[in-house]
Amino acid sequence: MPSYTLYYFNGRGRAEICRMLFSMSGVSYEDSRITFTDWKNYRNKMPCSCLPVLEIDGKTQIPQSMAIARYLAREFGFHGKDNVEMTKVESITDSFYDLFHDYMRLYHDRDGRLLTCLGADIRNRTSNSAMRIRYDESCQRVLPFMERLLESEGQAFFLGDQIKLCDLMCFAALENPLSENPILLDDYPRIKALRQRVASIPQIKEYLKRRDNSDF
Amino acid sequence: MPSYTLYYFNGRGRAEICRMLFSMSGVSYEDSRITFTDWKNYRNKMPCSCLPVLEIDGKTQIPQSMAIARYLAREFGFHGKDNVEMTKVESITDSFYDLFHDYMRLYHDRDGRLLTCLGADIRNRTSNSAMRIRYDESCQRVLPFMERLLESEGQAFFLGDQIKLCDLMCFAALENPLSENPILLDDYPRIKALRQRVASIPQIKEYLKRRDNSDF
Repeated sequence: MPSYTLYYFNGRGRAEICRMLFSMSGVSYEDSRITFTDWKNYRNKMPCSCLPVLEIDGKTQIPQSMAIARYLAREFGFHGKDNVEMTKVESITDSFYDLFHDYMRLYHDRDGRLLTCLGADIRNRTSNSAMRIRYDESCQRVLPFMERLLESEGQAFFLGDQIKLCDLMCFAALENPLSENPILLDDYPRIKALRQRVASIPQIKEYLKRRDNSDF
Repeated sequence: MPSYTLYYFNGRGRAEICRMLFSMSGVSYEDSRITFTDWKNYRNKMPCSCLPVLEIDGKTQIPQSMAIARYLAREFGFHGKDNVEMTKVESITDSFYDLFHDYMRLYHDRDGRLLTCLGADIRNRTSNSAMRIRYDESCQRVLPFMERLLESEGQAFFLGDQIKLCDLMCFAALENPLSENPILLDDYPRIKALRQRVASIPQIKEYLKRRDNSDF
């Protein structure tokens, strides 16, 4: 088993799906959290000048949160069993990522810093912005599709009775949107139930209990 | 071999990477192009109300351009040979996607329609916008990283002497940015040379020659 270090800021953000995959697998890793003050020093050392980055065996550095998540899902057995199933897992995951990405964009400035950390009044700033409209439109596009998908399959998780990357992403991607708008899933009972199933898996339950709380 | 239909608008856009993968493989597919007028009728029939969608054997419909592209890359042999190499392919591909996505966002309205189709003066509209700043920042983040990567590896393509998804994405993602700004890659000679190598592969050369020209 390789050694792993996951670099990210001190928040859930784009790294949380990776941390959940580590938790599900039971594989240990170093959860390296970089302060916004230190980011200036790290930025040029990181491939593609962005976080998260996964370091494998102290040498291979992989940027891009979802490329990392798919690597971990393949490595730990939370991906599809054949090419078509992998593609279904990934298309669901990417759809949730769209929604998540549009949400995150509401709260970042140009340098990728969270606006809350800068003391900006984020609600006033974004409530009527093009980015807010884009995010709302993504919700309207993604959530009804996911609800119908869960209805037509009628199984515990998106692709059967085994939890996969897409189920974990459904949980992770909607954490912040739900903390802002607790009734977001009231019209989507199957998505809501799926997230509860994910949260009740012992490894995830234990992880959610012990992790640090952060706004993002 | 399954039968394939690729649904998208009449443009390169988010479907072009998939068309290039089909061209490389020599596998035939129906290249179904939906007019903006017809999109209203198709929208609710498409999973996740978005395009592109890949239909496999007339039944399985897969949304999300990059999930489709990864499916085709695995199916046709343009992905990594093991998990780490797959992850490298995907992290490079996703980085180019970031840049491409930010560029596309400059030219779409809320309904995903190209602003050029609506007669809008897109250059004036976006030249000082937050989206333009975001796109420029993505270029400054992604391109130097890719140039260094090609320099350190010193091979014909990103991951050796065989063309992969990430090399095709390097070509596809930069087509529109380069048509707007022909000197974009002047400081990145290795990326420029890689794109020329991709364009000179017989299957791609033939495809580029016969495809319809479109603005996007």
